[in-house]
Amino acid sequence: MTTLGDTFHVYDTTLRDGAQREGISYSVTDKLAVARLLDGLGVGFIEGGWPGALPKDTEFFARAAAGDLTLKHAQLVAFGSTRKAGVKVAEDAQVRALLASQAPVVTLVAKSDRRHIERALRTDVAENCAMVRDTVRFLVDEGRRVFLDAEHFFDGFAFDPDTALRTLESAVEGGADVVVLCDTNGGRLPLGLAETVADVVARTGFRVGIHCQDDTSCAVANTVAAVQAGATHVQCTANGYGERAGNADLFAVVGNLVTKLGLAVLPHESLAELTRVSHALAEIANIAPDSHQAYVGSSAFAHKAGLHASAIKVDPELYNHIDPDTVGNDMRVLVTEMAGRASLELKGRELGIDLARRPDALTSAVRKVKELEAGGWSFEAADASLELLLKDELSESDTPPFTLESYRVVLDHTRDGAIVSEATVKVHVAGERVIATAEGNGPVHALDAALRKALLPHLSWLDSVHLNDYKVRILTDQHGTDAVTRVLVESTDGEREWTTVGVHGNIVEASWLALCDALVHKASRAAATPSRG
Amino acid sequence: MTTLGDTFHVYDTTLRDGAQREGISYSVTDKLAVARLLDGLGVGFIEGGWPGALPKDTEFFARAAAGDLTLKHAQLVAFGSTRKAGVKVAEDAQVRALLASQAPVVTLVAKSDRRHIERALRTDVAENCAMVRDTVRFLVDEGRRVFLDAEHFFDGFAFDPDTALRTLESAVEGGADVVVLCDTNGGRLPLGLAETVADVVARTGFRVGIHCQDDTSCAVANTVAAVQAGATHVQCTANGYGERAGNADLFAVVGNLVTKLGLAVLPHESLAELTRVSHALAEIANIAPDSHQAYVGSSAFAHKAGLHASAIKVDPELYNHIDPDTVGNDMRVLVTEMAGRASLELKGRELGIDLARRPDALTSAVRKVKELEAGGWSFEAADASLELLLKDELSESDTPPFTLESYRVVLDHTRDGAIVSEATVKVHVAGERVIATAEGNGPVHALDAALRKALLPHLSWLDSVHLNDYKVRILTDQHGTDAVTRVLVESTDGEREWTTVGVHGNIVEASWLALCDALVHKASRAAATPSRG
Repeated sequence: MTTLGDTFHVYDTTLRDGAQREGISYSVTDKLAVARLLDGLGVGFIEGGWPGALPKDTEFFARAAAGDLTLKHAQLVAFGSTRKAGVKVAEDAQVRALLASQAPVVTLVAKSDRRHIERALRTDVAENCAMVRDTVRFLVDEGRRVFLDAEHFFDGFAFDPDTALRTLESAVEGGADVVVLCDTNGGRLPLGLAETVADVVARTGFRVGIHCQDDTSCAVANTVAAVQAGATHVQCTANGYGERAGNADLFAVVGNLVTKLGLAVLPHESLAELTRVSHALAEIANIAPDSHQAYVGSSAFAHKAGLHASAIKVDPELYNHIDPDTVGNDMRVLVTEMAGRASLELKGRELGIDLARRPDALTSAVRKVKELEAGGWSFEAADASLELLLKDELSESDTPPFTLESYRVVLDHTRDGAIVSEATVKVHVAGERVIATAEGNGPVHALDAALRKALLPHLSWLDSVHLNDYKVRILTDQHGTDAVTRVLVESTDGEREWTTVGVHGNIVEASWLALCDALVHKASRAAATPSRG
Repeated sequence: MTTLGDTFHVYDTTLRDGAQREGISYSVTDKLAVARLLDGLGVGFIEGGWPGALPKDTEFFARAAAGDLTLKHAQLVAFGSTRKAGVKVAEDAQVRALLASQAPVVTLVAKSDRRHIERALRTDVAENCAMVRDTVRFLVDEGRRVFLDAEHFFDGFAFDPDTALRTLESAVEGGADVVVLCDTNGGRLPLGLAETVADVVARTGFRVGIHCQDDTSCAVANTVAAVQAGATHVQCTANGYGERAGNADLFAVVGNLVTKLGLAVLPHESLAELTRVSHALAEIANIAPDSHQAYVGSSAFAHKAGLHASAIKVDPELYNHIDPDTVGNDMRVLVTEMAGRASLELKGRELGIDLARRPDALTSAVRKVKELEAGGWSFEAADASLELLLKDELSESDTPPFTLESYRVVLDHTRDGAIVSEATVKVHVAGERVIATAEGNGPVHALDAALRKALLPHLSWLDSVHLNDYKVRILTDQHGTDAVTRVLVESTDGEREWTTVGVHGNIVEASWLALCDALVHKASRAAATPSRG
């Protein structure tokens, strides 16, 4: 429980509205994993889906009811629609499915914009109100707690406030205890939206919630402004997943409510879990985390300005809006051409490497980094490669897991138009000389495949390591010398992500360097942390 | 000019503050291309960088002054710092570099938070004010228009309003005509920020600008709220690029100001260019466009098929906050900016190809472009390839200057550490079958070299053609299929530059396709325009 108990609701709809995002397709197992992570974070409500409408959602609620999901903090919510026009509520199959889901809380969506009532539902305001009232009452009588999502509320209120308010009144008459004002089309801005929320609270005295879409890039701001105007229930999705431009991002909303408005909306110890949970939820959604996401992005507290590095070292609170530790993030300092001793020392500290006690090593590391960056290397996004370099300067490197003798890659565009890539590597690993050949979609893929084929029998952890992202940049204006290619490789072992860099005139060799660093980095961690398997 | 003229400033700082984003590293050519796109959009001011501090920025201003950049709408702005404490302004090298840049407008950054003045600058408020006043006056006396970026203004104003306001006053005393309030640490929310802006405007009567960072995910909302509170100058970056969580996104800010607040801040015809320009700028930054970006993302108006599909078809305006056409976007899941008949016809006209008289060819060209874009091609930044495609559809292609039989590329990392790339091409040119082999720095270079060796004796113009820039993007989310590689090649013959595109699962083949298009394009021009040699 949060110190605010039921007086403030953090309501997550990742599993329902978030799943509307293009590209997301949760399995039932995924949904259970998402719910566990959200519950661990301490949100008050987890909207699990629309039972009866989507088979996977029906199954999710069935498995939750069967004991596959034990929640410590949250209550499970089933989402659904009011009864159809002209149908008795007890006979509406969709409403019965909400009951059958056994979820203790039901959120009903209803129209509150007269244009939608007349043109999409093709009914009138009175019947719409009856649909809301009947359905809420039916569910409340069955022992459910009911919230109302008033769809298109802000547009509807602007067009015809009377109809919009009548929808809310019908819900409360039926026994709903929160009416959620939805900016369904996402076209609102904070200043006007806050006025409407305050107006509704003042006119009705109802408990008001807020649900915002991000079509003006203001979903987070709108949600927070609504709270400042009197809303005590916020509907969000993890990482802002959702249809079109998405929804209000749970992590930014919670970050703002806690650190800016001082509202204890999550259990105290949960705040430091935001970054971890955000990344874990991105994994499950199979979407690369947004490195520039507020609060939880890997760059959210990363400073590039070499200029201020010495000042940052002395007074980090002058250059960060909050202490990154608060949300489980950290202050990565980007190493750039302007980098000096101060920023490299700071960076080392962040990577767990104490350069302060070894001024000689620091001096040579600064020289080395400057030299490499002048040649096109960039460590700003490649912490893992920088870590290896610094350890090298301190002579603290582990023995590399393998060494290369040679490789050869052959690319053929044959007379019949076929494109073939084949690579052969000769490496030494675990005391043996291994030769392996593999094909791939392209030269780097073939080389990676051949290397894996050679090493896998000897390095058990290799199987868990995958290439997450691969970026290539051709650097053409390197002080008049020939162009060089910079390759960034992001790798993952399912738990962590790390980035390595390789630079060379030859793109394949640059890729090879980055791939090798990625494996050497993983080997050092695998050596430090015994497998849990 | 916009209908608002100088009364409202859209001020872009992509090239300075945007370049602080991790991973962005603009070449001078890139910077010129970015400036041209922004000018085409009609922004009022383009901050080009920090001359004197960064060699590339110095070169950018030099090339702009030398005539490499002709602006129709925008004024070029040099960014820099006030004189150092205890130094005469006329003797401050950094201030002199601002003059030397020849930019007509200078934006000076100054401290306005007493803690920063005392702890980072290690001076006092009086000297800080003198630094601001002296530097502004010096530049104004030299004929420059000067804006002041009051760094950490909101934090400083909250801590010690007197010091914060004195910084602004010193700038205006010196002759600055806009004071820009910066939320440098990005920790502010719209409701409080708007109050401060209104307070400053009321107390000082100064012309106020706004510069927001996105650390609370509220940069766009904060910028718009500041305008509602009296700011008439907004500093933004393309796609919100910037340090940490980034800056206020130019496209969302402009979208909101125009469509929500009714402010004509860009030339009327520019609004429909937002989507295209956003994507082109992402290409140049070599960052995958954010498909969920407000207004301009490919998913920003894409509805997941379901509940409302038929209703959306009948009444799209009930389900979109604006008509997507307004910002050059559309409601399809697969956005193909150029794939509409009208825009492709327009683009053809721009390239000197009359598609209006051939509706059948236009239809098949639209189909072809859609098909290719679904497979990862992008013609946004590759006019020369698009021109070839359109000519093909009109059956107006010239006979290609050569045809390929086959190629082979071999890459060796030898036992002694040498890296060797060798390519052999077999081509047919001028009625002959030619085989040539060459080495290069990498596979693409070797292939290019072999091709040149084969063709040069037969194609006299080839000698003038050089590869200017080469960009590679790995596209990982192509609807579940394997990743493909997109290569953009910019070529030059010393007079013109043109860009071609190639897409394939294999990077070398993708490069080959783009290289071939580049030569075919040049051949068609060489045929049309006899050599002057």
